[in-house]
Amino acid sequence: MTQPLRIGIAGLGTVGAGVLAMLDTHRGAIAARASRDIKVTAVSARDRSKDRGVPLDAMTWYDNAVDLAGDGEVDVVVELIGGEDGIAKELVDRSLSAAKHVVTANKALIAHHGQSLALAAEEAGAVLAFEAAVAGGIPVVKALREGLVGNRIDKLFGILNGTCNYILTDMSQSGRAFDEVLREAMDLGYAEADPSFDVDGIDTAHKLAILASVAFATEVDFDSVYIEGIRHLSPVDIEFARRLGYGIKLLGVANRAGDGIEQRVHPCMVPINAPINHVSGVFNGIVVEGDFVDDTIYEGRGAGAGPTASAVVADIVDIARGQRVPTFGTPAKALGRPATLPMGRHIGPYYVRLMVVDKPGVFADIATSLKNHAVSMEQVLQQARDPGEPVPVVMTVHDTEEDAMLRTVAEIAALEAVVEPPVLIRIENFLK
Amino acid sequence: MTQPLRIGIAGLGTVGAGVLAMLDTHRGAIAARASRDIKVTAVSARDRSKDRGVPLDAMTWYDNAVDLAGDGEVDVVVELIGGEDGIAKELVDRSLSAAKHVVTANKALIAHHGQSLALAAEEAGAVLAFEAAVAGGIPVVKALREGLVGNRIDKLFGILNGTCNYILTDMSQSGRAFDEVLREAMDLGYAEADPSFDVDGIDTAHKLAILASVAFATEVDFDSVYIEGIRHLSPVDIEFARRLGYGIKLLGVANRAGDGIEQRVHPCMVPINAPINHVSGVFNGIVVEGDFVDDTIYEGRGAGAGPTASAVVADIVDIARGQRVPTFGTPAKALGRPATLPMGRHIGPYYVRLMVVDKPGVFADIATSLKNHAVSMEQVLQQARDPGEPVPVVMTVHDTEEDAMLRTVAEIAALEAVVEPPVLIRIENFLK
Repeated sequence: MTQPLRIGIAGLGTVGAGVLAMLDTHRGAIAARASRDIKVTAVSARDRSKDRGVPLDAMTWYDNAVDLAGDGEVDVVVELIGGEDGIAKELVDRSLSAAKHVVTANKALIAHHGQSLALAAEEAGAVLAFEAAVAGGIPVVKALREGLVGNRIDKLFGILNGTCNYILTDMSQSGRAFDEVLREAMDLGYAEADPSFDVDGIDTAHKLAILASVAFATEVDFDSVYIEGIRHLSPVDIEFARRLGYGIKLLGVANRAGDGIEQRVHPCMVPINAPINHVSGVFNGIVVEGDFVDDTIYEGRGAGAGPTASAVVADIVDIARGQRVPTFGTPAKALGRPATLPMGRHIGPYYVRLMVVDKPGVFADIATSLKNHAVSMEQVLQQARDPGEPVPVVMTVHDTEEDAMLRTVAEIAALEAVVEPPVLIRIENFLK
Repeated sequence: MTQPLRIGIAGLGTVGAGVLAMLDTHRGAIAARASRDIKVTAVSARDRSKDRGVPLDAMTWYDNAVDLAGDGEVDVVVELIGGEDGIAKELVDRSLSAAKHVVTANKALIAHHGQSLALAAEEAGAVLAFEAAVAGGIPVVKALREGLVGNRIDKLFGILNGTCNYILTDMSQSGRAFDEVLREAMDLGYAEADPSFDVDGIDTAHKLAILASVAFATEVDFDSVYIEGIRHLSPVDIEFARRLGYGIKLLGVANRAGDGIEQRVHPCMVPINAPINHVSGVFNGIVVEGDFVDDTIYEGRGAGAGPTASAVVADIVDIARGQRVPTFGTPAKALGRPATLPMGRHIGPYYVRLMVVDKPGVFADIATSLKNHAVSMEQVLQQARDPGEPVPVVMTVHDTEEDAMLRTVAEIAALEAVVEPPVLIRIENFLK
């Protein structure tokens, strides 16, 4: 057997403790599978006295995580501190400079600095691995980098944030409003005290940018991701969606379009029978469309100590087994510059809800606006008219360019009879 | 860049032609991802003159596939001939003896000879890879061997045969009988001219035995798989299942039970909202339960030229990248001897349908039989009684050992008022 692989772990919160527990619980099986022992030789965290369920006495303790990069007894640095800059970034930079392998669960770091870090890793002949950064325990980065490696990927989309999916699942089952469900999710620990990273779509965007880079062999480009969260979704739209045969999910979508790619995070109406609509609660799910393999789908828990530890340990075992796959599947120098299609040029069907006071001529005005911008209507739902009271007018329209759609809706919003800002939700009509 | 990896392909049917097409279509991207060229240098097939869409002139042609094992210009032999013995086995044996890597889509070969072939591969320092043998394009072998490597797997189950799933999906949507749907599936090319490998569960069993070996780190043990197909399923039971809140799927299930493992292939009633019940038509789906990661789910096309080629090429690129994961995830010498729990000791809930002529005392007799064998009833459905005419009596029972269940049903079947052989279907109550 080869020498043990020596691990230094920075950050011993729930995930760090999960990694320690997994390596300890399954030490024998993991050593057999990796054909060598995996030994945690050093750790760093804030509080040395806290009980993590696994004895730390035999490990070198560092108060400053960055010092792990200089420990000659460490082959792999596991970064579980988080944050796109600061200590996490410094630790990863220095570890790669010292030709140490790095395993991280830090999606913000990879989304913002993935390209420079991948270059540094390849320069040093070190591995930079981040399965845990996307969709928790689901081995979807491995699926893209290795399992589907022979395909051209045309599109991928997924539910990448368990908090949002929990909230939307609850809203559609209970009919309750966003604020109420969010508050409850915070009480139950399913949402952070500051939930904006989750509910505003930023966390999903980090993960999407990483997946898009691997899928399309382009440099990770977080800044080009269009991001829209779920705060503005209301039970009435969820109910109309259901009547039209759709569920509403917060999706990250990356697809080839024109000469570039789209990267977008926004609420999406998806067919009620689509597999992605069955991914409920805190679960994550990703659909990948390859040209030879067709659709493959991956589901599982996207967060939590156990699932995240599972992904971190998988990356460690890959390194122990000598696997040396490029960071984003293609060597960093060979990654293309991403040509992002601006959101204004996105083409797709839309759902529109107007609150309209029924006055003579108003529907003619709406129809004229649609016609003027060449927007083609598919379905209309209109509730019983109540003279003088605003009633919802719901419609879906066929494929339209986003800019044209926004101009049309702005024009309609200016009509006197339209008494609330229109609601616009994009539709994805997956074939399966 | 390293030297090109040289491939010899045995078998140029739809899958072989798919592999040629994929390597040709995405030559540049694959070379970038693998950091070396992948070059098909030799092929073997029955008919040299057939057009496969890719020119074969630059490749050495062998009439006898076994000769690929002796070609010094071949690093990897891709075996797409099929069959558990005969030429396929001889080619793989000889290729491994010659220290050539082997990639195969041959589930029968791996299910029957996996252990000896894995030992031979490890002896020779060669890779034996078979992602394409299980669930087509879904990278589930990779997920088990690598992505979930840190977990103890407690259970896995899946829809592993698209033909059966197509037939069952159609039967439950149309209410038509098995024979009629099978005939149509054969006309449409979704079922083979001799469909018994598929509909009798043997194909599923091959795949299950392979997955169980990787999941539990035991020698592949096809002979211990309990196998029951779908020929005996009737629309009436599918309809009763629906009323009870279940769908019916042909599942391969492998789980730890007592001191051993169960490996079983049989029709299963699964909760209507379970993710596995949403896998429809020719799609395959696998659920894996790991102790840290919890459930992860994999879906996609389980057969066809494109999906199978995708898996074959992924194995080839793994080899090109220098990956050397043990055949079944753990070195063959370290695999445990499988301790299979006999099917008679399986414990679970059951569905029973009796055709009963309503005579005084018959329900008391049935109840007595259940009581005598300590079988505990959960639900009963009984249709309107029609004096003198047999009516279905459907019940579900709580966890019962299979032997006790069979004895009970045999006793009930012997009652004069029970006029048809009882129907018994196992239930799997997945929590999600």
